[in-house]
Amino acid sequence: MELADLRPDPTGYLGRLGYLSLVLFENLGRAVTAAPTVAAKSRLARSAAAMLAVHEGTVEALRSRRVDPAAAMEPSRRELDDFQRRTAGTDWYEVLVTCYLAGGFLLDFFGGLAAGLPDGLAERMERLLDEQDAGSPLLAELGPAIEADERLASRLAMWGRRLVGDCMLVARSSMTIDDAIPDATRTEPVFTELIAAHTRRMDALGLSA
Amino acid sequence: MELADLRPDPTGYLGRLGYLSLVLFENLGRAVTAAPTVAAKSRLARSAAAMLAVHEGTVEALRSRRVDPAAAMEPSRRELDDFQRRTAGTDWYEVLVTCYLAGGFLLDFFGGLAAGLPDGLAERMERLLDEQDAGSPLLAELGPAIEADERLASRLAMWGRRLVGDCMLVARSSMTIDDAIPDATRTEPVFTELIAAHTRRMDALGLSA
Repeated sequence: MELADLRPDPTGYLGRLGYLSLVLFENLGRAVTAAPTVAAKSRLARSAAAMLAVHEGTVEALRSRRVDPAAAMEPSRRELDDFQRRTAGTDWYEVLVTCYLAGGFLLDFFGGLAAGLPDGLAERMERLLDEQDAGSPLLAELGPAIEADERLASRLAMWGRRLVGDCMLVARSSMTIDDAIPDATRTEPVFTELIAAHTRRMDALGLSA
Repeated sequence: MELADLRPDPTGYLGRLGYLSLVLFENLGRAVTAAPTVAAKSRLARSAAAMLAVHEGTVEALRSRRVDPAAAMEPSRRELDDFQRRTAGTDWYEVLVTCYLAGGFLLDFFGGLAAGLPDGLAERMERLLDEQDAGSPLLAELGPAIEADERLASRLAMWGRRLVGDCMLVARSSMTIDDAIPDATRTEPVFTELIAAHTRRMDALGLSA
């Protein structure tokens, strides 16, 4: 089974992605505020803008289907607020790693899931998620810092390994927005691929997965 | 004397507006995070996106003049960080009022000041500042809350009156990015007009100035 084989309910999918992109935006906002230099602040603002574009595009997709965006997002609130708390991180670097790895993992997941949406909406959401590039400024900030400091690298590698579990929980519960809840054996290949992509992102940061 | 009579140094103007828009964005990010409902969170994200557009447009203007944006913003950092702390507010409503009134006052001011920039840049910055609409979602959030609660209204009116002093300090020191520092008597008409606009914004919120 692949992600594209699932047929997510459009309102469920859009509501969840709408709230998720808000949560990921809030994390990026914290990263901007805590940035140690003006240059870092300004670069990270680009990531925040990219994530807001995902949020606004998703809200527009809900509106064009005549669905109230807030009502569609509400069911995801408690779970994603919990996810946000668990993955908040204790310093600027951990916040950045969360933004890069959790944002990467979950937008990847929603990008794959988009293929099972009705025609038109599928392409619209794939395009929206493809176009965003919240990750590059984060990579540019983290890469050199990790390369320069071995202790930081090992601390952040631990953090990155922890994050993947929290991301998988969110992805797994997002798959149940399909009417037919897939069983765990069938969904395994999906997770294998998502974890492989996570490992590639860890590598790009210079962290051992 | 009017604002448009000043001839601000382009790099000084753009650097200051670049950092100011970051600071105002951070405030909006806090407002999104602290929003009590999903609907409010999502609406306020629009304001944050509008402010980021101002920041990015300003950074692009610096780049197209071959100026390093971070270096141009750096001189404003300490003063505007102080301004941010002083105007942080203690609860969600005060944060919103700061976003609405301080954002309104200062973008108004920079919009007026833009007229004295060199040709081309003046129009570019006027357009950028004209197009942003960070205020509307804030007004939509605050108006009904203030109308429904007299005690909140009187507390926020005090907060709004306090803010104007902090905004005037930032505006006054921003005028010295003009080579010829204008003396206080000559700049009085400028402030009269900015304060009148502030009073109109207080009125729009339903607050007595």
